[in-house]
Amino acid sequence: MQYDTPQFFHLMQYANTADRDVIDMVSGNPDWEPPKTIRTALKTYADADPDQFQYPPSDGLTTLKEEIAARRNVDPDQVIVTNGTGEANYLAMARALEYCSGSTVVLTDPVYPYYPGKATMLGGNPTLVATNVDGSLDIDAMVAAIDDDTACIVLNTPNNPTGAIYDLSSVRTIISAAEEHDALVIMDEVYDHFDLTGSFESALTIDSANCIVTSGFSKSMAITGFRVGYAIFPEPLVDAAKTRHMLVNVAGSRPAQQAVYEALRETPPEYYESARETIRDRIAAFTTALDAAGAEYSRPDGSFYVLARFDGFPGTMENTKQLIDEAGVAGMPGATFGTARSDWLRFALVTPRVEEAADRLAAYFG
Amino acid sequence: MQYDTPQFFHLMQYANTADRDVIDMVSGNPDWEPPKTIRTALKTYADADPDQFQYPPSDGLTTLKEEIAARRNVDPDQVIVTNGTGEANYLAMARALEYCSGSTVVLTDPVYPYYPGKATMLGGNPTLVATNVDGSLDIDAMVAAIDDDTACIVLNTPNNPTGAIYDLSSVRTIISAAEEHDALVIMDEVYDHFDLTGSFESALTIDSANCIVTSGFSKSMAITGFRVGYAIFPEPLVDAAKTRHMLVNVAGSRPAQQAVYEALRETPPEYYESARETIRDRIAAFTTALDAAGAEYSRPDGSFYVLARFDGFPGTMENTKQLIDEAGVAGMPGATFGTARSDWLRFALVTPRVEEAADRLAAYFG
Repeated sequence: MQYDTPQFFHLMQYANTADRDVIDMVSGNPDWEPPKTIRTALKTYADADPDQFQYPPSDGLTTLKEEIAARRNVDPDQVIVTNGTGEANYLAMARALEYCSGSTVVLTDPVYPYYPGKATMLGGNPTLVATNVDGSLDIDAMVAAIDDDTACIVLNTPNNPTGAIYDLSSVRTIISAAEEHDALVIMDEVYDHFDLTGSFESALTIDSANCIVTSGFSKSMAITGFRVGYAIFPEPLVDAAKTRHMLVNVAGSRPAQQAVYEALRETPPEYYESARETIRDRIAAFTTALDAAGAEYSRPDGSFYVLARFDGFPGTMENTKQLIDEAGVAGMPGATFGTARSDWLRFALVTPRVEEAADRLAAYFG
Repeated sequence: MQYDTPQFFHLMQYANTADRDVIDMVSGNPDWEPPKTIRTALKTYADADPDQFQYPPSDGLTTLKEEIAARRNVDPDQVIVTNGTGEANYLAMARALEYCSGSTVVLTDPVYPYYPGKATMLGGNPTLVATNVDGSLDIDAMVAAIDDDTACIVLNTPNNPTGAIYDLSSVRTIISAAEEHDALVIMDEVYDHFDLTGSFESALTIDSANCIVTSGFSKSMAITGFRVGYAIFPEPLVDAAKTRHMLVNVAGSRPAQQAVYEALRETPPEYYESARETIRDRIAAFTTALDAAGAEYSRPDGSFYVLARFDGFPGTMENTKQLIDEAGVAGMPGATFGTARSDWLRFALVTPRVEEAADRLAAYFG
């Protein structure tokens, strides 16, 4: 397991060239409309003076940084606007591996495969700790894994792929263990707008100098291709992260930052609620049909993924391809996300055809 | 010397808050119009289907990669579209430091300060070799500096800040030395469209498995804020660089890539020639007035910078600020670019007021 994109591209390509109709539930690309203001702001920007086409501040347009800071109740100086949440996680993990004496990166299993990929690239040693069957953190096992060799713990909540939302007391326990061992906790909250149960609380509500929060607008605004994310660092850690950001990327892309800034100000709560409602409806439709297929599955509290297990059909790449060919449904092999869910397949609810997909699965396995 | 942007921002801010009119010649931000298609393509993109707002391929939109490859006469698989030339140089230097046994990064003095900054961040040891007074490579000194400890040599041609264009036989000699010591040569050609003398030849015309070429559209299309650049790797080196790009950034920003792709196809040669003509006119006006000021200066063969030396007025940060306050002209201290030109100041010709700036300098020093 290195990182998921080659497998992801491999599967997308396989699905696209299949000799039949395939329902694509591989990627985490939203299929719904972005906020209206994304479109209007890009058009207005296209007519701007040439000086608006030049470098934004390295750590992001000042207006955007201030807007994010106000919403997250932090100092604008703590915010770095990044090339998507991916870069935010890279900066946070690099900071941990530089700053902390340890080199172990504690992750959950199942895990978003970019995390161990980044850890290894940065010279760290990923250690995976299995979550409970319902996707919640196995606190005792996590705390036991955190020691003086630990540089950081990376948690993603709401979680991809399990759909779990970690309760704040669990997160607080992890942060306390990190503080005890001079390690950092990195909270990837990119699915924060896909809290489907009203139970999500950001780690920013916990007062700690050992916690970095990352997020972005790829999912909440349905613009994964714009690459606008951010990291919120504790004050003493932010300057070195800004330096790395500058030395790697100079700055993020300004048309995208400008569009996100305006959309952040103009988009009403109803936009986000409507996206959640879409996902809730799709979960209901998909899981009803999974019941008919006799599958075990996760019902996500957050994010927009469902893990499903079909008896005698483990989540290998081979089986995933077989499902494309024989059932016309494309998911991701559970084996991509570590070892804990290698019997499972992940389905992204980013198509209006989820019910049809589940019916195909029911017909195939039923 | 770490990297120039803090000094750059520091000076911009100082100039902006000065108690007088200041002509800004600090940054490398073009002040002229981007190609028309940049504007029209952004507007068209703003109306695209939601799937066009999702992740482009990690290594760049296929159309853009193919367009770049066709223009540079390489295989599209060798191309990685990056978040500006800055990321391209980062990927290239990281590849060299991973791939080669050595850890020394050989650079010129004066040097674009991001290079030693990146080298240090990546665990390499920058070594600076002074160029000749006219900015050309001191071939004997460069070749002497390349040994089995060398990971890479980074050359920027046309050069910022000297304006020198390296002749192809010098570049060939450096590449041969690199090949002999299993090192890589990174050619940053981002000013390739600002070849003012018709003497520039890309290193891509040299057949070598040890040469990486980087470039981008920030300067040629006057869009430094869009962050679209690229690296062309030798085939055996490209896959690991694509992996790093994916693990750091996932992908570049799609609206910017789409606009650049369309502008690359639609923009006539006259656009680029007109930008060069603007720079030639500004060089003539600026240097004529520098003559009147009794200054020594470089007349750039390429890029859009002039280095100037005023007797008894070395290029320190303190003197640069004094010039802002007392002459109303903002440049960059030569000390930012290493030690070889610490007596000099760099002026970016990115304002229509170059003649007025030079007159102010003449009045101040004359």
